[in-house]
Amino acid sequence: MSFLELLPAKNGEEPTMQFLLEVVEILTSYIRKTFDRSTKVLDFHHPHQLLEGIEGFNLELSDQPESLEQILVDCRDTLKYGVRTGHPRFFNQLSTGLDIVGLAGEWLTSTANTNMFTYEIAPVFVLMEQLTLKKMREIVGWPDGEGDGIFSPGGAISNMYSVMIARYKFFPEVKTKGMAAAPRLVLFTSEHSHYSIKKASAALGFGTENLILLNTDERGRVIPADLEAKVIEAKRKGYVPLFVTATAGTTVYGAFDPINEIADICEKYNMWLHVDGAWGGGLLMSRKHRHKLNGVERANSVTWNPHKMMGVPLQCSAILVRERGLLQGCNSMCAGYLFQPDKQYDVTYDTGDKAIQCGRHVDIFKFWLMWKAKGTVGFEQHIDKCLDLSAYLYNKIKNREGFEMVAPKIKAMMMESGTTMVGYQPQGDKVNFFRMVISNPAATRSDIDFLVEEIERLGHDL
Amino acid sequence: MSFLELLPAKNGEEPTMQFLLEVVEILTSYIRKTFDRSTKVLDFHHPHQLLEGIEGFNLELSDQPESLEQILVDCRDTLKYGVRTGHPRFFNQLSTGLDIVGLAGEWLTSTANTNMFTYEIAPVFVLMEQLTLKKMREIVGWPDGEGDGIFSPGGAISNMYSVMIARYKFFPEVKTKGMAAAPRLVLFTSEHSHYSIKKASAALGFGTENLILLNTDERGRVIPADLEAKVIEAKRKGYVPLFVTATAGTTVYGAFDPINEIADICEKYNMWLHVDGAWGGGLLMSRKHRHKLNGVERANSVTWNPHKMMGVPLQCSAILVRERGLLQGCNSMCAGYLFQPDKQYDVTYDTGDKAIQCGRHVDIFKFWLMWKAKGTVGFEQHIDKCLDLSAYLYNKIKNREGFEMVAPKIKAMMMESGTTMVGYQPQGDKVNFFRMVISNPAATRSDIDFLVEEIERLGHDL
Repeated sequence: MSFLELLPAKNGEEPTMQFLLEVVEILTSYIRKTFDRSTKVLDFHHPHQLLEGIEGFNLELSDQPESLEQILVDCRDTLKYGVRTGHPRFFNQLSTGLDIVGLAGEWLTSTANTNMFTYEIAPVFVLMEQLTLKKMREIVGWPDGEGDGIFSPGGAISNMYSVMIARYKFFPEVKTKGMAAAPRLVLFTSEHSHYSIKKASAALGFGTENLILLNTDERGRVIPADLEAKVIEAKRKGYVPLFVTATAGTTVYGAFDPINEIADICEKYNMWLHVDGAWGGGLLMSRKHRHKLNGVERANSVTWNPHKMMGVPLQCSAILVRERGLLQGCNSMCAGYLFQPDKQYDVTYDTGDKAIQCGRHVDIFKFWLMWKAKGTVGFEQHIDKCLDLSAYLYNKIKNREGFEMVAPKIKAMMMESGTTMVGYQPQGDKVNFFRMVISNPAATRSDIDFLVEEIERLGHDL
Repeated sequence: MSFLELLPAKNGEEPTMQFLLEVVEILTSYIRKTFDRSTKVLDFHHPHQLLEGIEGFNLELSDQPESLEQILVDCRDTLKYGVRTGHPRFFNQLSTGLDIVGLAGEWLTSTANTNMFTYEIAPVFVLMEQLTLKKMREIVGWPDGEGDGIFSPGGAISNMYSVMIARYKFFPEVKTKGMAAAPRLVLFTSEHSHYSIKKASAALGFGTENLILLNTDERGRVIPADLEAKVIEAKRKGYVPLFVTATAGTTVYGAFDPINEIADICEKYNMWLHVDGAWGGGLLMSRKHRHKLNGVERANSVTWNPHKMMGVPLQCSAILVRERGLLQGCNSMCAGYLFQPDKQYDVTYDTGDKAIQCGRHVDIFKFWLMWKAKGTVGFEQHIDKCLDLSAYLYNKIKNREGFEMVAPKIKAMMMESGTTMVGYQPQGDKVNFFRMVISNPAATRSDIDFLVEEIERLGHDL
């Protein structure tokens, strides 16, 4: 078969559709192997090896077209040298697993190839987003799911939104006049909070020195008394405490800050309370575990990434806001070419002007489709299973010792052998240790057993 | 066939793979119809109609799972009530068309389901991004493709990056101390520039009043003398002129600002020059048309969205920066759990800390794959064809009159009939007019003829 005459592909002719189906065959074969535990998680090569063109895999772009046969080879090679994040023994990131319904949703999304800014060009997706956000707000606990929200390109941007709208709520004139119009504003967050809060404070013009880090207890949770002391200290200096993040599931320890105590202090000093549930928000789906986020309904805004613990394919992150109108007020610029007020339909459905983006990827459909397929109860079962596995791991290793000191070396050997993947890092005065993440729907107790044994085996070889 | 026992799908079992293949069948049938001109571009319904559950299409989420048979129906309905942005007669947005190689790339991307932050978990994609960005910088005209860059979630975020790094270049202390550490900074952009520049000035703490709009000539291009006069005026008031955007392809008129004259002024007054080529950047691929961006090599940063004129599926936007190190300096926060300095491979490939995001969607692969399949010459042919069609349309309608006064009414009728889609808006003192966008690779002269006749036909019915 030769596709060459008809390509670059554009008009759905038979050979181009045949090409697409051949890619599907490559992908389905890849998926089958991903779930086969005898397949390696990765086939590691150093950057210079891949750049040199290993086994003929040429990454360089050229002036002339390649044949479609070669494009199929490129697709196979791309998968061969990548990492199987859906493998049952991949524990390296907060996002793991490969849900087939979610994947089908993502394939449909890219086939529809549209954009979220208006109802005009994404009628179904815009409504799905609206209904799903409302459902999420109901689960957070806001009356009747009232409020607002938007899906954004990841938790860091969702957290950035929260800081922006807090600033807009208390100092709306900053939108037009800049930070010069506000007094010196300070933000508070856990010393263990995600670094995106720090990125946001730099980007939005607060300055990282005006982000005050809060001390944590032995389990990595913010100490409320430390927050209050630092608020008082900031006010004494003449600064204005604006914003507090409570983290629901810290990135490294998975700790949950005490939201209710923090909310009390926020109310007392009139500060915005943001809950960063990028990682832990999924627990809200579980009647058994949602108590860890008790008080979340008192937050002014919540970040919640279904692409983490809920296993939705990347990317899928929501920022939820309790007060309606702030997102629009903060970000709207009323571009005449997109948001014409004289359209023939109800333009309140044109959500684009709430965003700091213009074009916005359709992140909702895969999530909506998974929710349809699993039901709320299906997500709950998944979360409960992850927490069970986590307890199983805790009990298994609590009496073992000697893992942490050599984490980087074991990690390197693990990558070379490609049998499993788990992250590591230092934290504060602690040396490098493994950070075990359980969000993969395909992982079982046997995979936990395998991981622990593999770490021991690799450690013995040192 | 009943999938129910095995789903929610997770382990690549046969029934789940069968389900995925059924979705593929739905999608390929959708694609074939999209390119068939007898298919409607859209089947319009008002929001309340879709929310009421038209023909049994129920958008609401529920506690209990749906059957997979029902999920397939949901997929069909989602496509049925959506807009066919790949249809040869869809001219409504800057992003149009459905390239099958790009689509295959996107399906592979979602199957790989990984994240761009480190070489560790996206080795192939990270290298593809690096090579492609270098190639783009070569095409911009920077010596040996030197410089830096990153793919971001759309042109608005790319433009936001440019403002951030300009501020970091001239006032690096703002990162730690906030805007209070800088004098009153002003930004300049065309009155016809994209509204994302205004969004960035609000978000980053400059304030929209410190974004000064520049007058344009009769063809919508910035008047350089107006820029210089306004720079002098700002300095006289004690403000510091920081940043100028030259737009290469404005959103409404498609005008190209005179980059060389603007660059002269930027050099004279020591200001950052950003070229927003989100729309027009694609012309750089055409030897015949790239002269419209003459001087782009003098820019400090360039936004270029392959998802617009180059027909790459959404989303695909790059911010290119001439000086290496600024992106990293501006945004890095050195998170220990991701960017461990003691990894076993060369960690300069871990690009994540350059981003304002943490997780970052893989936007590179579809673009890389299309480039492989078309070659640089293939993109050039596509751009040349779009510009030819545009000239054809101009010649066809230049002697016709009477379109503009009734644009909204015709637009409404067009949406109801669903035969074609084109945007409209007012601009300045001009009333509503149609904005014709040509970037769809599937469009031919006959589609242009059809559009013009359709507008006349609908106009006659008024």
